[in-house]
Amino acid sequence: MRTFECDYTEGVHPILLDALTKTNFEQMSGYGSDPYTARAIEKIKAACGASDATVTLLVGGTQTNVIAIDLLLAPFEGVLAPSTGHINVHEAGAVEFTGHKVIALPGHDGVLDVDALETYLETFYADATHEHMVRPGLVYLTHPTEYGTLYTKAQMQRVRELCDQYEMKLYVDGARLGYALGCPENEITMHDLAALCDAFSIGGTKLGALLGEALVFPKEAPPHLLSQVKRHGGLLAKGRALGVQFDALFSDGLYERIGREAIRHANRIRKILERKGYPFAWASPTNQQFVILSDAEAEKLLKTVGFDLWGRWDAGHWIARFTSSWSTTDEAVDELDRILPDKTDR
Amino acid sequence: MRTFECDYTEGVHPILLDALTKTNFEQMSGYGSDPYTARAIEKIKAACGASDATVTLLVGGTQTNVIAIDLLLAPFEGVLAPSTGHINVHEAGAVEFTGHKVIALPGHDGVLDVDALETYLETFYADATHEHMVRPGLVYLTHPTEYGTLYTKAQMQRVRELCDQYEMKLYVDGARLGYALGCPENEITMHDLAALCDAFSIGGTKLGALLGEALVFPKEAPPHLLSQVKRHGGLLAKGRALGVQFDALFSDGLYERIGREAIRHANRIRKILERKGYPFAWASPTNQQFVILSDAEAEKLLKTVGFDLWGRWDAGHWIARFTSSWSTTDEAVDELDRILPDKTDR
Amino acid sequence: MRTFECDYTEGVHPILLDALTKTNFEQMSGYGSDPYTARAIEKIKAACGASDATVTLLVGGTQTNVIAIDLLLAPFEGVLAPSTGHINVHEAGAVEFTGHKVIALPGHDGVLDVDALETYLETFYADATHEHMVRPGLVYLTHPTEYGTLYTKAQMQRVRELCDQYEMKLYVDGARLGYALGCPENEITMHDLAALCDAFSIGGTKLGALLGEALVFPKEAPPHLLSQVKRHGGLLAKGRALGVQFDALFSDGLYERIGREAIRHANRIRKILERKGYPFAWASPTNQQFVILSDAEAEKLLKTVGFDLWGRWDAGHWIARFTSSWSTTDEAVDELDRILPDKTDR
Amino acid sequence: MRTFECDYTEGVHPILLDALTKTNFEQMSGYGSDPYTARAIEKIKAACGASDATVTLLVGGTQTNVIAIDLLLAPFEGVLAPSTGHINVHEAGAVEFTGHKVIALPGHDGVLDVDALETYLETFYADATHEHMVRPGLVYLTHPTEYGTLYTKAQMQRVRELCDQYEMKLYVDGARLGYALGCPENEITMHDLAALCDAFSIGGTKLGALLGEALVFPKEAPPHLLSQVKRHGGLLAKGRALGVQFDALFSDGLYERIGREAIRHANRIRKILERKGYPFAWASPTNQQFVILSDAEAEKLLKTVGFDLWGRWDAGHWIARFTSSWSTTDEAVDELDRILPDKTDR
Repeated sequence: MRTFECDYTEGVHPILLDALTKTNFEQMSGYGSDPYTARAIEKIKAACGASDATVTLLVGGTQTNVIAIDLLLAPFEGVLAPSTGHINVHEAGAVEFTGHKVIALPGHDGVLDVDALETYLETFYADATHEHMVRPGLVYLTHPTEYGTLYTKAQMQRVRELCDQYEMKLYVDGARLGYALGCPENEITMHDLAALCDAFSIGGTKLGALLGEALVFPKEAPPHLLSQVKRHGGLLAKGRALGVQFDALFSDGLYERIGREAIRHANRIRKILERKGYPFAWASPTNQQFVILSDAEAEKLLKTVGFDLWGRWDAGHWIARFTSSWSTTDEAVDELDRILPDKTDR
Repeated sequence: MRTFECDYTEGVHPILLDALTKTNFEQMSGYGSDPYTARAIEKIKAACGASDATVTLLVGGTQTNVIAIDLLLAPFEGVLAPSTGHINVHEAGAVEFTGHKVIALPGHDGVLDVDALETYLETFYADATHEHMVRPGLVYLTHPTEYGTLYTKAQMQRVRELCDQYEMKLYVDGARLGYALGCPENEITMHDLAALCDAFSIGGTKLGALLGEALVFPKEAPPHLLSQVKRHGGLLAKGRALGVQFDALFSDGLYERIGREAIRHANRIRKILERKGYPFAWASPTNQQFVILSDAEAEKLLKTVGFDLWGRWDAGHWIARFTSSWSTTDEAVDELDRILPDKTDR
Repeated sequence: MRTFECDYTEGVHPILLDALTKTNFEQMSGYGSDPYTARAIEKIKAACGASDATVTLLVGGTQTNVIAIDLLLAPFEGVLAPSTGHINVHEAGAVEFTGHKVIALPGHDGVLDVDALETYLETFYADATHEHMVRPGLVYLTHPTEYGTLYTKAQMQRVRELCDQYEMKLYVDGARLGYALGCPENEITMHDLAALCDAFSIGGTKLGALLGEALVFPKEAPPHLLSQVKRHGGLLAKGRALGVQFDALFSDGLYERIGREAIRHANRIRKILERKGYPFAWASPTNQQFVILSDAEAEKLLKTVGFDLWGRWDAGHWIARFTSSWSTTDEAVDELDRILPDKTDR
Repeated sequence: MRTFECDYTEGVHPILLDALTKTNFEQMSGYGSDPYTARAIEKIKAACGASDATVTLLVGGTQTNVIAIDLLLAPFEGVLAPSTGHINVHEAGAVEFTGHKVIALPGHDGVLDVDALETYLETFYADATHEHMVRPGLVYLTHPTEYGTLYTKAQMQRVRELCDQYEMKLYVDGARLGYALGCPENEITMHDLAALCDAFSIGGTKLGALLGEALVFPKEAPPHLLSQVKRHGGLLAKGRALGVQFDALFSDGLYERIGREAIRHANRIRKILERKGYPFAWASPTNQQFVILSDAEAEKLLKTVGFDLWGRWDAGHWIARFTSSWSTTDEAVDELDRILPDKTDR
């Protein structure tokens, strides 16, 4: 049975698999000292317009977030995040494990409420006891968000200004970054991220890599980066596995192409859902589409097609997520169209 | 100038000072192995009706909370607390420093909303991804709360039932416990705490000790407790300093007497504030009284009497806290009565 | 230029690559919930004769060690290790990052001195202040060791007995386990490890996987394992990458075959080195061979063949490491034979 | 029965107790914002000749060491210490709890072997894999040492030079500092410590305070110090308790006087032990004297006078510690003289 449950149900993009296969018997040194990693890093820096950036290739998303946050923060500082942010909800306390408080702020459909951020900071510093509280040292955003939504450039710039004003860093979790870049609605390029952030990640896993995230520090390089990555258990012996994949992802515009194609499929899925009368939980321009299904509808539909019961809408309804990805095909979307019952008939 | 800013503005209760002085040249072994500590622990166990309890005497409140929470939780678990709880706001991230997430829940005037707790737990375990989230392992309450309010016995029993149902521990931070015990409105005795909690603290610092909190584990003793306290930097060389004070505090009903007297003073203060027309931020039956002052009123009044600008009420008003304690005298309250302008004149 | 510097210079064993390629477009759920992971785990349990074991597949060696150690220890306990143990030297403090002390003990060529272990434990518990010291909660061994050497079964059994006597756990780091299993000299099977250890790892990365280590808890399953792995940043989204590889590694005796073949190559390398008069730093029966080269010899030889300058022997000499692996060929060893100067000529 | 087991068997020096008593009912703000703490800090800075120093008053020794080390180190760095150093042995892993490795180096009677330190650093940086190892970021020394011995000024200067050369910090644990300052043999003044160290502590607990250690950062002030102390659970509500005591300790030369008097008593004790034929474990010029007793001697003597069975000398002998302190009297030493059997009679 076909599934649209998430964007990591298949293995690895054929071009990346081909690159891994072709280079398989080349002997290379470990821990990211191989030439493919070096080349991948140069290409990523070029794609970000950040020739002075420091880039490291890591295995997974939680690891990447934790390393970025722990390296950007002073030990006693905490990270501000929308309450729906991945680090606040779905990373099993990995950030707190490194000693940092995640301070949750309100948001809308995954997007941090920048006014609430400003109010928090004003209130914090107006409080005479604020030295007894956790100093906010960093703002964490996801782009696209967990809700598939996007920040406007104005929003992210305003966050940056608040970071400057209150001496904080800015980190953007780009686990699905390619699916933002592939959207016409997206206003924020990799160049923008390099200009606005102290660090950001470029997701590989959800964009066709077997595994791998690029972590970019566009400005200041963290000291002893390899050692710090190792201490976090994030240093891969065969760093080539990451290097070869990111070298391929950042060659011939593949990363952007993957994003654009997946968005084309997501748009088809959205139109099918709209046409057939499925109410949307909220509008998402990216590769995740969220509709509301009654419990009975969900149960029935899951017998014919896979999707994610993302969360509860209310007592009798689910939020159902349909996801496109690098591996989605037109045939798969055609099949979804055939399977999905038309609710407008009733 | 007289101040009512908090309940730790004076040093140590004369009876405790006398006990410290009298025992000063007795030679005793360190680290809590002295006879006064042993005797204090027996008296505390008797006061709690918990003959099998394990008690340790610690220096400060944050230390006590962190040790209790870290020892009761599995490393990967988090602690549920009202968003206004001391550990979530005013302990500079000390709980997160030990690797545990503080999960903030709504409350009312410092009291955890038990319905919200139940909803949180139901939602958590209904979520198919909950193994990616921080397992709630403990509920943290303060009694009295940071707002001077009290839990009803029914509320605390319901929290205990939820803890049993969801395999969680219960810890009550009693930094101001004596000021609850001294209240006629208080429904929760030390016997109740011993029956309901996995651990609770009995505050000494705010009740007349120079320093010191008793941490009680009424049921299960944590393994290698001395070693764990030492690892947290909480083992006092001259443990006698704590033992002698708690021995005195728990002799001849002193702890309860201190609480009752301070509540008598607090009631006088409340009546003075009421009579003179000061609007209360919320009702508190314990030793902290919270009234609303305009910024101009606050500024003027601070020239003649000390109190705490506890927080903002709104853009133009402060919440002002007036606190009684073990060291409050009738003369001091009389003086406050003389100083405070009568707002009903206007 | 050919290199023998380590056992992770090539990518992935062709059989594993083939398995990854064949399954690439099968849609599977993430985080290790796929059927290949389930099948791999069953095969590993069968190979260990441990039907009640809990097995999890992880990405890297440091991560595996840290997760094993942190999950086996109480928070306040430390781990005993030979001073040359990987966790004490080459993991950038990853174990201490989780709050545990590594207590270094003497050893011989990488093998823990079991007499020294016994003396340490006797002395520790005879010390009246031992509650002020870090309680030893676990013994960490590597098999084969970092020096290529092996524990005898009697040695490991004696360690187990001391663990039982002093209420400690035993963890064996098997990053190169296959290269022990492939040795005729090896006395310790996977069945033995399952019987003797509380946890042990079965290295994939150095045995032909692109990445991956299996962590086996033969007896007691750690609670909420997935959640704990996630908290350590070790949960892979596309768990299939590990499942498919380990499924292949543990099919048709591949894991043992890889080990045996590499040991055959290592034996050839050793004989070549012996025949040509290179003095050995110590005897190693496994895939790593250590000889002593003068600085001048090393510098010259590195122009024609790669090997690892593993460490200093003395002021004028290096310990040079020549490693065979799953990817070593007879042609490569023949080439080494041609390249290596004969020192007996002189 | 009289005891000489350690230097914290009595409570508090009468002058300090008097100061606590006299100031007891003065109302003061909490958390070290009181005038006595401010005055104490000024006096300590003057005593150290370090007008730009940052000083904080803390409760206990382990807490002080951990806060100093954690604040001076980058998160990924470790601390070099003699293997006998208090942080490596008797702090229950409190330093590792904050994520830092303690790297143990050889020493002689408690004094770090500076040659071994230099060799360690040379070897570390000559190792091509050193980024996989814990970067040494700090040297920890005690003065006097746990063995009662002292560093020469030349030794400490050489350590400082190595710290400069290898970009490390230097921290000196002065839990018994006053007993060094009271020795004619001592070459290192508080001015020297301020010039040589990045931080050092001035012990109060063992020098007559009920509790309290001063932590001095002579050069660079750690950011948000109060907040960091709070996060470590080390911020005392009634900071006055520390301020009043240190104000008294650093008035009228009391701290030095206490040290000198205790050393006078220690010298008497040493002469008594010498005269009566007790073999010394090693020479100590400070307030702790270590002699070797057979198990039978120790057992018998403990029936008439208290001392510390400090450790094993060999299978049949103890190292026995006799300690003088701020509370030792001539009468007590006379009594020891009467009690101690004369071994030269035999």
